[in-house]
Amino acid sequence: MVCDAVGITCEDIAEDSYDASHPAFVSSVSENRHMASVRTPDPNPGWISEIALDETRSRVPILYVEAVPVRLNSLGQVDLVGVLLRGSAATGQLTRTLVSGRVMHGESVREALLRNLEKDLGPTAFPQLPASIVPFTVAEYFPLPGVAPLYDSRQHAVALAYVVPVSGECIPRQDALELTWLTPEDAASDDVLAEMEGGRGSLLREALAFMGALS
Amino acid sequence: MVCDAVGITCEDIAEDSYDASHPAFVSSVSENRHMASVRTPDPNPGWISEIALDETRSRVPILYVEAVPVRLNSLGQVDLVGVLLRGSAATGQLTRTLVSGRVMHGESVREALLRNLEKDLGPTAFPQLPASIVPFTVAEYFPLPGVAPLYDSRQHAVALAYVVPVSGECIPRQDALELTWLTPEDAASDDVLAEMEGGRGSLLREALAFMGALS
Amino acid sequence: MVCDAVGITCEDIAEDSYDASHPAFVSSVSENRHMASVRTPDPNPGWISEIALDETRSRVPILYVEAVPVRLNSLGQVDLVGVLLRGSAATGQLTRTLVSGRVMHGESVREALLRNLEKDLGPTAFPQLPASIVPFTVAEYFPLPGVAPLYDSRQHAVALAYVVPVSGECIPRQDALELTWLTPEDAASDDVLAEMEGGRGSLLREALAFMGALS
Amino acid sequence: MVCDAVGITCEDIAEDSYDASHPAFVSSVSENRHMASVRTPDPNPGWISEIALDETRSRVPILYVEAVPVRLNSLGQVDLVGVLLRGSAATGQLTRTLVSGRVMHGESVREALLRNLEKDLGPTAFPQLPASIVPFTVAEYFPLPGVAPLYDSRQHAVALAYVVPVSGECIPRQDALELTWLTPEDAASDDVLAEMEGGRGSLLREALAFMGALS
Repeated sequence: MVCDAVGITCEDIAEDSYDASHPAFVSSVSENRHMASVRTPDPNPGWISEIALDETRSRVPILYVEAVPVRLNSLGQVDLVGVLLRGSAATGQLTRTLVSGRVMHGESVREALLRNLEKDLGPTAFPQLPASIVPFTVAEYFPLPGVAPLYDSRQHAVALAYVVPVSGECIPRQDALELTWLTPEDAASDDVLAEMEGGRGSLLREALAFMGALS
Repeated sequence: MVCDAVGITCEDIAEDSYDASHPAFVSSVSENRHMASVRTPDPNPGWISEIALDETRSRVPILYVEAVPVRLNSLGQVDLVGVLLRGSAATGQLTRTLVSGRVMHGESVREALLRNLEKDLGPTAFPQLPASIVPFTVAEYFPLPGVAPLYDSRQHAVALAYVVPVSGECIPRQDALELTWLTPEDAASDDVLAEMEGGRGSLLREALAFMGALS
Repeated sequence: MVCDAVGITCEDIAEDSYDASHPAFVSSVSENRHMASVRTPDPNPGWISEIALDETRSRVPILYVEAVPVRLNSLGQVDLVGVLLRGSAATGQLTRTLVSGRVMHGESVREALLRNLEKDLGPTAFPQLPASIVPFTVAEYFPLPGVAPLYDSRQHAVALAYVVPVSGECIPRQDALELTWLTPEDAASDDVLAEMEGGRGSLLREALAFMGALS
Repeated sequence: MVCDAVGITCEDIAEDSYDASHPAFVSSVSENRHMASVRTPDPNPGWISEIALDETRSRVPILYVEAVPVRLNSLGQVDLVGVLLRGSAATGQLTRTLVSGRVMHGESVREALLRNLEKDLGPTAFPQLPASIVPFTVAEYFPLPGVAPLYDSRQHAVALAYVVPVSGECIPRQDALELTWLTPEDAASDDVLAEMEGGRGSLLREALAFMGALS
């Protein structure tokens, strides 16, 4: 697949063509199917075509979830922070990013969070989703650089951002080339922050502050 | 205006036909206009037609903000909770609700919150928006009753919900018939909760718990 | 041991005579010992006599931690809430309570939380302490009933209250007769709330609201 | 007054010799007096002698409140952050600090917060205490430098830290030489952080992150 031929990044495609055999996805779809029998004739409500998604992106802010995977010690203190190293077809550069993905129509925020964690960290990461749905911050991405710290050329996106402890082995799928575990000190370094896609360095710093790990 | 002729409630129209002379809206539009010169030819980016909005509602979850207006004493304790008494053209019934509205394309969450507070409480309410953008909860509305505590027949909506102290006089506009100030005890009563639109009684109880005022 | 002969509850004693072989305690003590070599001659800084504790209780508010143990599903939603059934020597009655204990001198809040979780739930509970030290609420207990919702006849206490997921087997120690796992609905019932010691029913409801599980 | 002759800083004295005509203090005392008629013969329960306070400081962690005063714009975004420039008799140096003070016996956290804001910012600051008692962080000060980021030579202290918008004129009292209003960028600078007393630079950065203002 030649992602950059159509001017979109691989993330776009990965995000919307997730594995339909995924348990969270199946449960979401079956829930939607139940809804569909009453209200919505669309047999596949969460998924929409790239054209429809582009049109939608020009109309409303798009809701995302983002996650900072962490390894905690027995006292709950953060030992390591997971950062994805991902190839961007749009720029040809390797950039660092966080677990991130769209909330589908009919999908709950928790389902979207779990689905995107499994998409980016693999099926054996064993993430422990938080007991409260309140995010550590709300990240607002605007399509023009410089308007706000966070930037997404594709869209106006609003992301609910969570810190998620993972206890298992993380095996990123194809589109995420590598997961790097950094100490809090390294994660807060200017070098790492400068490599974060779309200004997510500020988001990573807020996550570290939330954990009391911003040196 | 005959709202119900087209099967939508008055809230839909009020929400999308806000006063274009509103300062927040003007700043948002001017910001958008600046964006528009580079990317978006649409001269009125936040606003979309009812048809486009209906289509969009079938594709993605729609981002909302909601606010519980409160009167605080000098110690920050809640004296009174503001609840709107609003007529629903869809059902013909009077129901209670919270300050609520959509986040427009190109609009920040804070701008949407201030705009909707002014839309529902008038220009002299003097709301004090919180220093942190983290909501007290994330409210998820699904279009089928019974799936979740919160329900919105029009759409899958996700609302960032805030407690907002107001110090001025609240003069609800046309579509909100009345603003009622309730004590925390009355706001938590089963009677009030049963009258709350779309299951927002649970949301109001979470707001009271957040303020330590759930008896 | 005849707790009630001296007019204090078993909790007092249990709280201050914790197992010195406990890893958290050992690390705390060794840290204190290091401090002691420079500043403090007291060989056992966290522990103080009952007489000194009583005197201290008349002088300053005493800092506590409290925890609501929960079983979460893979989406982070609460399945079950753990409530302790505990004998109070002061009243002779069985009452329900939460995991609770004092923060010792020289002990961090996280160490106190882990130590009290292990004291009340045993060594195989495997609690996952939260990534953020921010509590879901701050609970204030005053020594006179009726002043505030929360009441502690022994003292003015201020507790940092946390929701803590546990994944292992909980085996309460001697002073806690039983750990009961309740559904969120049962935990919010008026019956359970009336049985909670010192007004902790309101605290439990705030925990449920924090988890979005207050029906 | 020669503070340093007895090895304590001026803050100690200022903290415990607050104006007895202060409304918050009066209300606290009258509440305590009411308690006193039933349980406590001490006519002045919150106040304790320096000797008793020193003894208490060796026994239990001492509960504090801290506040970062801020000027917010109409959208709730932080324009300016207030930092106190304060003389330390112990070191002879001028250092920067935050609004800070002990929670007295019988005093609520909110009362302590309001009292200390008025002590440090004067009677016309008009602070708006937050609707929720949940702090943005819990700050732990240990008496040995290097154990934790935060340090207090006098004691093990645990502070509940809040961001508090102020709308009036701030006139610091004698012991606080000056209140400086800084932009978020300046407040986050390495220069300012290095001047913060007891490691409070990390606390100030967490406050900025909480407000989404950490550049």
